[in-house]
Amino acid sequence: MKPSIPQGTRDFDALQVAKRQYIFSTIQKQFALFGFQALETPAFENMETLMGKYGDEGDKLLFKILNNGLDREEKKENARQDFEKILAGKNTKGITERALKYDLTIPLARYVAMHYGQLTYPFKRYQIQPVWRADRPQRGRYREFYQCDADVVGSTSLINEIELLQVYTNVFEALGISVKICINNRKILQALAQFCQNDLALTAMTVAIDKLDKIGEEKVLDEIRKIGFSEEQVKNVEDYLKANLLEDNNDKIQQLKKLFGDIDIAKEGIEELQYVLNNQPKASLDLTLARGLNYYTGTIVEVKPQGIQMGSIGGGGRYDNLTELFGVSNMPGVGISFGVDRIYDVMEELNLFPEQINTQTDVLFINFGLEYQTHCLQTMNHLRQHQISCELYADPVKMDKQMKYANKKGFRFVIMLGENEIKNQTITIKNFKSGEQKSISMAEAITWITNSNV
Amino acid sequence: MKPSIPQGTRDFDALQVAKRQYIFSTIQKQFALFGFQALETPAFENMETLMGKYGDEGDKLLFKILNNGLDREEKKENARQDFEKILAGKNTKGITERALKYDLTIPLARYVAMHYGQLTYPFKRYQIQPVWRADRPQRGRYREFYQCDADVVGSTSLINEIELLQVYTNVFEALGISVKICINNRKILQALAQFCQNDLALTAMTVAIDKLDKIGEEKVLDEIRKIGFSEEQVKNVEDYLKANLLEDNNDKIQQLKKLFGDIDIAKEGIEELQYVLNNQPKASLDLTLARGLNYYTGTIVEVKPQGIQMGSIGGGGRYDNLTELFGVSNMPGVGISFGVDRIYDVMEELNLFPEQINTQTDVLFINFGLEYQTHCLQTMNHLRQHQISCELYADPVKMDKQMKYANKKGFRFVIMLGENEIKNQTITIKNFKSGEQKSISMAEAITWITNSNV
Repeated sequence: MKPSIPQGTRDFDALQVAKRQYIFSTIQKQFALFGFQALETPAFENMETLMGKYGDEGDKLLFKILNNGLDREEKKENARQDFEKILAGKNTKGITERALKYDLTIPLARYVAMHYGQLTYPFKRYQIQPVWRADRPQRGRYREFYQCDADVVGSTSLINEIELLQVYTNVFEALGISVKICINNRKILQALAQFCQNDLALTAMTVAIDKLDKIGEEKVLDEIRKIGFSEEQVKNVEDYLKANLLEDNNDKIQQLKKLFGDIDIAKEGIEELQYVLNNQPKASLDLTLARGLNYYTGTIVEVKPQGIQMGSIGGGGRYDNLTELFGVSNMPGVGISFGVDRIYDVMEELNLFPEQINTQTDVLFINFGLEYQTHCLQTMNHLRQHQISCELYADPVKMDKQMKYANKKGFRFVIMLGENEIKNQTITIKNFKSGEQKSISMAEAITWITNSNV
Repeated sequence: MKPSIPQGTRDFDALQVAKRQYIFSTIQKQFALFGFQALETPAFENMETLMGKYGDEGDKLLFKILNNGLDREEKKENARQDFEKILAGKNTKGITERALKYDLTIPLARYVAMHYGQLTYPFKRYQIQPVWRADRPQRGRYREFYQCDADVVGSTSLINEIELLQVYTNVFEALGISVKICINNRKILQALAQFCQNDLALTAMTVAIDKLDKIGEEKVLDEIRKIGFSEEQVKNVEDYLKANLLEDNNDKIQQLKKLFGDIDIAKEGIEELQYVLNNQPKASLDLTLARGLNYYTGTIVEVKPQGIQMGSIGGGGRYDNLTELFGVSNMPGVGISFGVDRIYDVMEELNLFPEQINTQTDVLFINFGLEYQTHCLQTMNHLRQHQISCELYADPVKMDKQMKYANKKGFRFVIMLGENEIKNQTITIKNFKSGEQKSISMAEAITWITNSNV
């Protein structure tokens, strides 16, 4: 039997793990500097926690876990009936009570709702964990991937928005990725729909505007016509999109003020944008930014890498009520997320991973035979106390085979500790890269290895 | 709807995450010092990778993932038929093609078999990831839990055993847990069965001996009678168990030599034990150690914490052929595993977590109103460049509410930056624990905070 890995999933080897760990820890460090605290939730949640939270499309993409024990005699008949529900595209606890988590937001909501009374608000949590989606796998889209989220729950203050934008700035600066941080405000889009005398069309309109990058202005306006906007209303959307062509954030704001005259919701949105932009002048106001997810209600943000063809590598926004679906109201929040897989791809492509990321073991001890092994093993324990990683080749085979191993696994040094060395209380040590070889004392060797740390 | 967490799973809050992280990184650091390299595999594997690898009992404990798209018209009839197989306790790809991983060993075997030609041997990998088992939850037994494994694949050298025992020693020393590291060798148990002229009874006998701690010698011998051992053979087992009462490793070895005279397999086992114990004299030879899993063939090991009532917190052993089931032969290996959940419990109970593990944010800035926020936000960015974590209370509410937040979340310092401070270019800073309060320059404050780091 030839084994295989499930479609859409990946193994990560040592170097990939180290590079991913570098991204995670860079993000985690900033989260902590901004007062966010870690949370981890299980891989799977009860079905009722997840169902209906991601729209019909999302429900279909959940990985559902088959209940165990369906073959028990007393359960069979019910199971058979329940299975008909599955075949009808419905869900039933009789067949599947649990599903793998689809994102980190609903598990957060479930956690906050469960521990409502014990938490300190604003509750600032970060979470770095994998999620699973039964999407059709394609380039850059996986069925198992990590999300890195930070959310502030229980506060409407714009300070949170400003701080989260700063987290983005700091993380991408630390990673060396130059980015454009685009923000907008859902209240502006709401006003636009209202201004167009078409209040209900907000979602359809934002979906259309969201496609601007991909399909161009003409086709966006066509789609908006199809929603049922009159030509005059379409003209309004066009003016709005034109305002976005202005270079400067302030000019755009001024144009918004002109366009939206005295619509209350627009004024709110403009004021919020102004306050956030005053404190984060490097963020770009992008009036075409809409973000698909329906639950955003205020500031929205998306991060695009510069100098490379790649979609957004981060996004988020403000939502009105995180936990309402779990029976706890008045829990406004705002959060951001990092797209780690894309960040990884950007860094690979632009060669941004620091050289220090490597998985090399420091030293290979050459194995000269049974009679020297004990001495080598003891010496290695001594080196490890000095944080030097090492191993003894497992068998006393020919030198060239051991050297080939050293080469393939990429050791930094090779140490030879045979009869002569033991007699003279020295070791023979070779820098594998430079080829330089010395016979020195153990203490000198430790200094050499330590000082030549990558 | 009152939300809940799935039975047998856990959320981990910030402090729990930090403590678990401390255990993981202590283990990970030793793995790396011994030349092991990281591997990560997906949460789920194809069903054929997992089925039949853990015995009938294990198969039943797999969390199987329901296939998506069963409601498609053209699939329904087949699905209905396939579901009958599930009801009959069989498995079928028509209903479930994937399952959550049950341990880290089979995914390793799958990985090695898939990448057979590209790996460097001996292949030394470590893996720290969660696994899932549909066990009945009970105290200390979870449906989602972490395993930490290190394995050497493709080498029969006893150096690997010696090094892995050293990993155990170093990790538990670093964690401050005093342990007894018990070893034995399956070849001895095999000889015992052979010596008893009952070669086939090895598994049944090891299972019986494995229960010695729980049920006592009398009952073990009863079970062995039931396997079909004669009274003379039972006497042999009794002698063997008596040999274990000797204090010293060497005395036990001598007794083994006497008991097993000239059985070849016993000699091999005794020689292996002697070589390993010579290089690891602190390990205890425990002749009653058997370890349930069938696939062990040489050295076996189990780690028991001292001074606390708790089962083993680590275990492993040598196996003959890791990848045979995946069509690749000649892949002997040896590995160890850490029981992180139990290690956590031991450390909690014995109060072994260092005080430095905390999730405190360094500084809370008191919010005195909109006009001071921008100044505070900028100051905070400055502090963060000095690795000081901080946040501004999100709203300019009453002082005592902000102080209550500082107290509940456990900040180390509170900084007040209002009209006077901005005018005088100072800040007012209070150590929350000692109550000490000063008005000093920002530079002085940074020094104070940094030097008083926990």
